[in-house]
Amino acid sequence: MRIAVLGGDGYCGWATALYLSMKGHSVAIVDNFARRQWDHELGVQTLTPILPLSGRLRVWQSLTGNTIELFVGDVTEYDFVSSVIKNFEPEAVVDFAEQRSAPYSMIDRKHAVFTQVNNVVGTLNLLFALRESQPDCHLIKLGTMGEYGTPNIDIEEGYIAIEHNGRKDVVPYPKQPGSFYHLSKVHDSHNIMFACKAWRLRATDLNQGVVYGTVTDEVSLDEALINRFDYDEVFGTVLNRFCVQAAIGHPLTVYGKGGQTRGFLDIRDTVRCVEIACLNPSLQGECRVFNQFTEQFSVLDLARMVQSAGEKLGLTVAVDHLSDPRVEEEEHYYNAKHSKLIELGLEPHVLSDSLLDSLMNVALKYRRRIDTSVMLPRINWRQPSNERRAQTEGELATLIAGG
Amino acid sequence: MRIAVLGGDGYCGWATALYLSMKGHSVAIVDNFARRQWDHELGVQTLTPILPLSGRLRVWQSLTGNTIELFVGDVTEYDFVSSVIKNFEPEAVVDFAEQRSAPYSMIDRKHAVFTQVNNVVGTLNLLFALRESQPDCHLIKLGTMGEYGTPNIDIEEGYIAIEHNGRKDVVPYPKQPGSFYHLSKVHDSHNIMFACKAWRLRATDLNQGVVYGTVTDEVSLDEALINRFDYDEVFGTVLNRFCVQAAIGHPLTVYGKGGQTRGFLDIRDTVRCVEIACLNPSLQGECRVFNQFTEQFSVLDLARMVQSAGEKLGLTVAVDHLSDPRVEEEEHYYNAKHSKLIELGLEPHVLSDSLLDSLMNVALKYRRRIDTSVMLPRINWRQPSNERRAQTEGELATLIAGG
Repeated sequence: MRIAVLGGDGYCGWATALYLSMKGHSVAIVDNFARRQWDHELGVQTLTPILPLSGRLRVWQSLTGNTIELFVGDVTEYDFVSSVIKNFEPEAVVDFAEQRSAPYSMIDRKHAVFTQVNNVVGTLNLLFALRESQPDCHLIKLGTMGEYGTPNIDIEEGYIAIEHNGRKDVVPYPKQPGSFYHLSKVHDSHNIMFACKAWRLRATDLNQGVVYGTVTDEVSLDEALINRFDYDEVFGTVLNRFCVQAAIGHPLTVYGKGGQTRGFLDIRDTVRCVEIACLNPSLQGECRVFNQFTEQFSVLDLARMVQSAGEKLGLTVAVDHLSDPRVEEEEHYYNAKHSKLIELGLEPHVLSDSLLDSLMNVALKYRRRIDTSVMLPRINWRQPSNERRAQTEGELATLIAGG
Repeated sequence: MRIAVLGGDGYCGWATALYLSMKGHSVAIVDNFARRQWDHELGVQTLTPILPLSGRLRVWQSLTGNTIELFVGDVTEYDFVSSVIKNFEPEAVVDFAEQRSAPYSMIDRKHAVFTQVNNVVGTLNLLFALRESQPDCHLIKLGTMGEYGTPNIDIEEGYIAIEHNGRKDVVPYPKQPGSFYHLSKVHDSHNIMFACKAWRLRATDLNQGVVYGTVTDEVSLDEALINRFDYDEVFGTVLNRFCVQAAIGHPLTVYGKGGQTRGFLDIRDTVRCVEIACLNPSLQGECRVFNQFTEQFSVLDLARMVQSAGEKLGLTVAVDHLSDPRVEEEEHYYNAKHSKLIELGLEPHVLSDSLLDSLMNVALKYRRRIDTSVMLPRINWRQPSNERRAQTEGELATLIAGG
């Protein structure tokens, strides 16, 4: 199958591209290296020393004999997206090519506007490009479980059957996203749903939970293929950050009470879920939604698991409760359905001591690269910096870098 | 009360600004004349000969002694919005300043992207500007009934109480918008809801139905104050277009079966609803939604009413059923609640023969300005023109102009 992976140089995209290539699919990566640029902007870097993409792809080819095509450009430029679709003629497009950090979108007005314009325009361009020259191609779009927020009722997979005043309908599940980033994904979801209806496109919206882990079979083949491992407050995901903190004796940074419950999954399940979606395309005109996670945990559950795993390794792990910088309930009901990918064959990797050990060992291996100053939350959802309030460029840079 | 009317040079904005000024409020109009520019782009003009805004405002002042302040600029430029809010210090902002035509958003990719970026960024800027310097100001945002689509259950005012698997919650009403324009309003609604929660702003989202009529007490004071009256396929609203068609013996252009049912209201109720919202602000942190319409009609109901009113005036009125260019159900259940504004004091103007007579008389008065070539639908929702498909600029211009 011909599969284009948009954002294939990023955390989930890179692991997905290699997995699909190993499975024998013909893969192209489309990327503009925005993710690397944001590291420069924020003054942070991945814990793991990743190679430039060209180097990664050369090593992949020499190890496996598989070529991954590369298209360098920005999906917000229509001519570029359109030419990629026309030239590569994908049967499936996997779209990771978005600004995917909630804290980044909450830095200030410029970052909020950038996130929404970047994500919404990129997706609109992709929809128009598919309609123009590849209308049968299956769009697999990465959404987020954060689109739903934390309602007091069960979260269904994209749609909900409602009986109201004696009448029934199945309608899109109501969305209550909690940051300008999460909002951008809700905007995308609505746009995609409409395009499927209007133009008979086929799409699968993967509402992904919080991803943890860094190792897949493919990226483990050689250190040159190593994946990103982000632990900073902006792009780091919570479990990865906790493991790094445990490894170096830094208290785990739990926001508020830690009762915030979310869906989580191993990156080895991310890549498999994407493959399952590719192999089981939605129908023409159908916009299907899968909730892509395997287990629910509260932040405090995770902290305790990391604490316990650390102690087995002889580490002393403290847990700090920081004032929650986000706009979220610190304790709430949470029960999200996630059976559709299981029904299609997903066999989940559950979170285990051995995985936590391996994450902490990655952190120990690269401990000289750890910058503890980037772990604490500096971006306040309720009081985002305003370019008018940050008196100087320098102040803003300091704020963002957490210096 | 100090009220800023964003988009105050447009159809609803102009009538609203004058009404609020007559009621003794201190009014500022904020506009960049985009609406006039789109007429130039499309090669159309309002049936009624409107003056430049500066001239309208001079006449208003000389007739009433009331000064309306004017700020010329684009709300997608943050420095501009921010300076307006700081200088005028409004207690309420009424936001009409968006691209508000569904067909315009469906012309092609550029118009879709423009509509969403323009509307979403303008609203984001306004939210940040209010938070920055006027956080207690009441944002009154014009949404549209089209955000809801046509579900098979009753449409509530913004939120719906759901009982699901034995648990209960009140959640945002699910949205199923039917064009890139309507989608942009859904995006705005989600962004505003979040800003109210995160920053304790106060907002009222007015999901307005289709507006008809052109006359209010204020715009009738002098022909120099005359309001827009659009009848073209892109910016014309359906009842106004039907009245123009009846007046000149053009068949009424019903799309498909005509069973499309929507909420409608007289422009005299638009201005009153906005005043009601101003006088009854929402609470800090509250994002309140009102459905702003007074009666439901199907398109065919309207056609028959115009036909009957025309016959009383001695006109022969034919009804044409054209292939529906839109993505919509041609027959469907529709029952939308709209009691909140009534509870706050709205006394609706219902659609009557005399109003239809007066609209047709306006059309007859200005019949020499009517261009019949702009009434037929040329923009196809299911096959929007693509800049790649339109071979030349000229072709696109012809397509848009309906020439």
